[in-house]
Amino acid sequence: MHDFKGVYPILATPFRSDERFDEESLRRMLAFMARIGVQGVTVLGVLGEANRMGDREREAIVRTAVEEVGSRMTVIVGISHPGTRATVDLGRMAAELGAHALMVTPSAEPAPNDARVAEYFSRVCEGVSLPVVLQDHPASTGVHMGVPLIAKIVADNPRIACIKAEAVPSAPKIAALKAALSRDLPMLTGLGALYGQFDLEQGSSGYNTGFAFPEVLQAHVAAWQRGDKSLARRVWTHFLPLIVFEQQPGVAVRKELLRRRGLLATGTVRHPGGALSPVSATQLGELLDAVMPGVDITQPLDVAAVIG
Amino acid sequence: MHDFKGVYPILATPFRSDERFDEESLRRMLAFMARIGVQGVTVLGVLGEANRMGDREREAIVRTAVEEVGSRMTVIVGISHPGTRATVDLGRMAAELGAHALMVTPSAEPAPNDARVAEYFSRVCEGVSLPVVLQDHPASTGVHMGVPLIAKIVADNPRIACIKAEAVPSAPKIAALKAALSRDLPMLTGLGALYGQFDLEQGSSGYNTGFAFPEVLQAHVAAWQRGDKSLARRVWTHFLPLIVFEQQPGVAVRKELLRRRGLLATGTVRHPGGALSPVSATQLGELLDAVMPGVDITQPLDVAAVIG
Amino acid sequence: MHDFKGVYPILATPFRSDERFDEESLRRMLAFMARIGVQGVTVLGVLGEANRMGDREREAIVRTAVEEVGSRMTVIVGISHPGTRATVDLGRMAAELGAHALMVTPSAEPAPNDARVAEYFSRVCEGVSLPVVLQDHPASTGVHMGVPLIAKIVADNPRIACIKAEAVPSAPKIAALKAALSRDLPMLTGLGALYGQFDLEQGSSGYNTGFAFPEVLQAHVAAWQRGDKSLARRVWTHFLPLIVFEQQPGVAVRKELLRRRGLLATGTVRHPGGALSPVSATQLGELLDAVMPGVDITQPLDVAAVIG
Amino acid sequence: MHDFKGVYPILATPFRSDERFDEESLRRMLAFMARIGVQGVTVLGVLGEANRMGDREREAIVRTAVEEVGSRMTVIVGISHPGTRATVDLGRMAAELGAHALMVTPSAEPAPNDARVAEYFSRVCEGVSLPVVLQDHPASTGVHMGVPLIAKIVADNPRIACIKAEAVPSAPKIAALKAALSRDLPMLTGLGALYGQFDLEQGSSGYNTGFAFPEVLQAHVAAWQRGDKSLARRVWTHFLPLIVFEQQPGVAVRKELLRRRGLLATGTVRHPGGALSPVSATQLGELLDAVMPGVDITQPLDVAAVIG
Repeated sequence: MHDFKGVYPILATPFRSDERFDEESLRRMLAFMARIGVQGVTVLGVLGEANRMGDREREAIVRTAVEEVGSRMTVIVGISHPGTRATVDLGRMAAELGAHALMVTPSAEPAPNDARVAEYFSRVCEGVSLPVVLQDHPASTGVHMGVPLIAKIVADNPRIACIKAEAVPSAPKIAALKAALSRDLPMLTGLGALYGQFDLEQGSSGYNTGFAFPEVLQAHVAAWQRGDKSLARRVWTHFLPLIVFEQQPGVAVRKELLRRRGLLATGTVRHPGGALSPVSATQLGELLDAVMPGVDITQPLDVAAVIG
Repeated sequence: MHDFKGVYPILATPFRSDERFDEESLRRMLAFMARIGVQGVTVLGVLGEANRMGDREREAIVRTAVEEVGSRMTVIVGISHPGTRATVDLGRMAAELGAHALMVTPSAEPAPNDARVAEYFSRVCEGVSLPVVLQDHPASTGVHMGVPLIAKIVADNPRIACIKAEAVPSAPKIAALKAALSRDLPMLTGLGALYGQFDLEQGSSGYNTGFAFPEVLQAHVAAWQRGDKSLARRVWTHFLPLIVFEQQPGVAVRKELLRRRGLLATGTVRHPGGALSPVSATQLGELLDAVMPGVDITQPLDVAAVIG
Repeated sequence: MHDFKGVYPILATPFRSDERFDEESLRRMLAFMARIGVQGVTVLGVLGEANRMGDREREAIVRTAVEEVGSRMTVIVGISHPGTRATVDLGRMAAELGAHALMVTPSAEPAPNDARVAEYFSRVCEGVSLPVVLQDHPASTGVHMGVPLIAKIVADNPRIACIKAEAVPSAPKIAALKAALSRDLPMLTGLGALYGQFDLEQGSSGYNTGFAFPEVLQAHVAAWQRGDKSLARRVWTHFLPLIVFEQQPGVAVRKELLRRRGLLATGTVRHPGGALSPVSATQLGELLDAVMPGVDITQPLDVAAVIG
Repeated sequence: MHDFKGVYPILATPFRSDERFDEESLRRMLAFMARIGVQGVTVLGVLGEANRMGDREREAIVRTAVEEVGSRMTVIVGISHPGTRATVDLGRMAAELGAHALMVTPSAEPAPNDARVAEYFSRVCEGVSLPVVLQDHPASTGVHMGVPLIAKIVADNPRIACIKAEAVPSAPKIAALKAALSRDLPMLTGLGALYGQFDLEQGSSGYNTGFAFPEVLQAHVAAWQRGDKSLARRVWTHFLPLIVFEQQPGVAVRKELLRRRGLLATGTVRHPGGALSPVSATQLGELLDAVMPGVDITQPLDVAAVIG
């Protein structure tokens, strides 16, 4: 059922201007994702500012996601926590609320320790009842998992159902993992789609990232999967300036885009995260005009029309 | 009332062998602290493995501490969280449960930003109703707060009532802060008492650290305060091998000592924290024999007798 | 004379397969840069693997660059060193050998200290006789210089003649620096041109980066400077997949491109730097075919022809 | 001949007040070491501010050490460099100048890679002609070498003759290495002697560290080796306040002590290293008075007399 192929947007967590969780915006964003037909969504990832949330807020977000779209797509919940037992507890909470899968990444310890990382995944996989997406994202975690370590973790834990491949260079790592793993596992592209074309070439099964126009990622994957390599490359390249613009640090750029798309009531980022600079706001407007002139971005994008 | 002078042990969080919170051991440890007459305790610090705890567990720990000793000493609660709003929420929880003070330290952001750190403290101080201990501990947080930044934070926020001075070299920093702050503020020594003698010389008002023999810290402060510098130095030096032994990374050494003192049922550390190595366990026994031969460490220490 | 406007490629250091410095390839690369008419070159930057070089090798590289193109363009030499005095010594060596400017970036110290960073620049500027390019690249240095600190350094040191703006988000930082600096200073774009379009929009005066097709950067700047914003955007976007491909970590990708361009005899990277993976080599070929089909990349690129 | 048993002080590099290398002070310090009869010295370690030195200065320091004491004790030269080939070049320089052994530690790369670290040691060991001391000091290098990795490096490279064990907790690591290594290898204690007693208990063969009173370390090792455990412990404990005082960051404390001992003309630290604070200078004086009242520290210490 949950094959982790296609497009699984990572969702921002909407806040009101006073930083309270904005359930209404989350529902609107979820409904939009259902409307464009993505395969699933991930809540409580880095983009979701999970690390700035209390446990009760986490519950509210998961509950909302499951209620709104749980019957129509895969709901993945980020549960990473510096404590192994707390990770398990969050995973159980997510399962009880009806989520379908869990995203797990290890936390950096003072002295890196591969055996401890492997134990972490084994304990989490033993403690929870849902499929696990192993997130390999050293830029945010500080944990560097070599191919042999990931292969061991995957071999030890049948519960691991997908790898979110976010260790650069990602395409060679996907290739190396495909060669090294004891079983065939879907690998999804993250990193805001920056290396999306190269990852697809090496066997990525789709996207699990927060780019504010998931329709573009859908069009990219669809073109690639039906063998139209030229179109795939054209789609990705056309929107690459926007993908690059979103690479600028902080989640404010993406939240502003989601706001302009009518999905978020405000682009508020929780403190101490930074707000969008006026310079970036202006540049974003000009960039949208250049990349998709005249397009109403509050509606699902007609990618073919945009790239002409 | 809460003058932050004297000895305020940082408490370990007791766990059963399956890593569940062990309330009984926490009560026993609290009762012991009351028995030896410390001025307060801090729960949910680094030694308390606060970062490996869920929010409901945090509540249980605070509730237990307040119930057991809240009427007899100052109960300080660590509330630091990567999200400012979540820090405030934890502070309100602690206040509602009857705690007396809060310990707050900033979290590292990808790009260090003094203004953001100052805002963090201002927002927290505005959002909570209790005195705040500003913890300056770059080794655990990765946040380096210069003297001018701390001076600004203290000037901006009357709620700040104490500084836990754990930025090395700590003694010169205490001196520099005393010269720079706009008001007189008690400063407590941390870092496992490693630089305790030097901090006292520069005006530390006591200890706020997790050394497993707080009686020693009481004797050290008492001797210093009544002007017996020679005795103070003798007390500290006698136990310095033990203080140094505890500097080894991880909280396992301290938990083992607390277990041997009869305060914890087990020395269990939550995964992924490391357990005590057999080598360290053996060395610890020999060290205790050398530092305080024949002493029953389950009883409050007669420091004068030990140092002879 | 040296106005730091235009395109100043950062040069790779060529090595033979046994890692010895390959002077012949360096001369060939320098001659190529002269042929396409860049305004200057930088040797001994990060891409130049300066940190893997001994001092005598550094001298040989500077000598070669000055000899080959010193009369035709600005030769900038990277001199950053963890020791301030050693930085000055390298700067004097470069001046004696006839270089025209120096690139300087601070090194991370255990505790960040803005005053120390400002001193570093002042001592270097007092100790050397050439214009200084202040490089602001926290990703490689770990030193985060806020706008006020850079403004102070620039005000204190008239010798600083240019800023290499590589702190993300770079475009807002360029804008903020332009507003904050006490004098007008050219700012050059680095980071492999990833944010080149956005930087130009905020007043970047050109490029100082290692993208293997500097002709593209020349075309980008030229179009922008004559007001053809649409063409500028088109040039940058067309080559953006290649720019992104080069963002993958390590210098091996760029060295391989320079090898394919006929400029380097080998793509050898000095140990412990990593070699190019076969996967990346294959992908690079496909990417070149897609971005500039049929083009002989050993010749200067006709950018207008490539983008059609 | 070079058995790496006993005491091998790490030497500070003396500078004049203008930061120029002070050869005369280095000779005086070396002569003092010969006078007290240490087994060897290490130049160009972290304490020697090796990273703030140019290559010609490094040569001058090695030359001076070999000339002054090379016939009387083992001269070890720190040669670590971010580039493997440059490390080898420094090692050859040291050998040509007559040094007896090399101290090598790996540099941190953006993504930790055990295989690359092993290669680093193999290439260095193949490229040089002297015995190698493998320094395991993650606090300064950021490289965490697990026991299996070190065991592999030692098995692969017969040239490795000693391990400088500075990864905390050091005593358990020494024990683990002794159990894991394929051959018996001396292990020396570093870290300023902080854990010296515990390391000796686990089989450390002596000291290779910069404590400013190497006579104390000699007395400690001597007492331990002749089985007088009680005296060994007493020696170490008596001076532990001084050992702890020296743990404060920066090399300024040690250089000041060496200056007070009459060995260095000035306590100058190279920028950007920090100078001694007046607070620390005052505390140091009081501490010396307390630890060894009335003792002339410019003369070799009579440790037995000091501890009474």
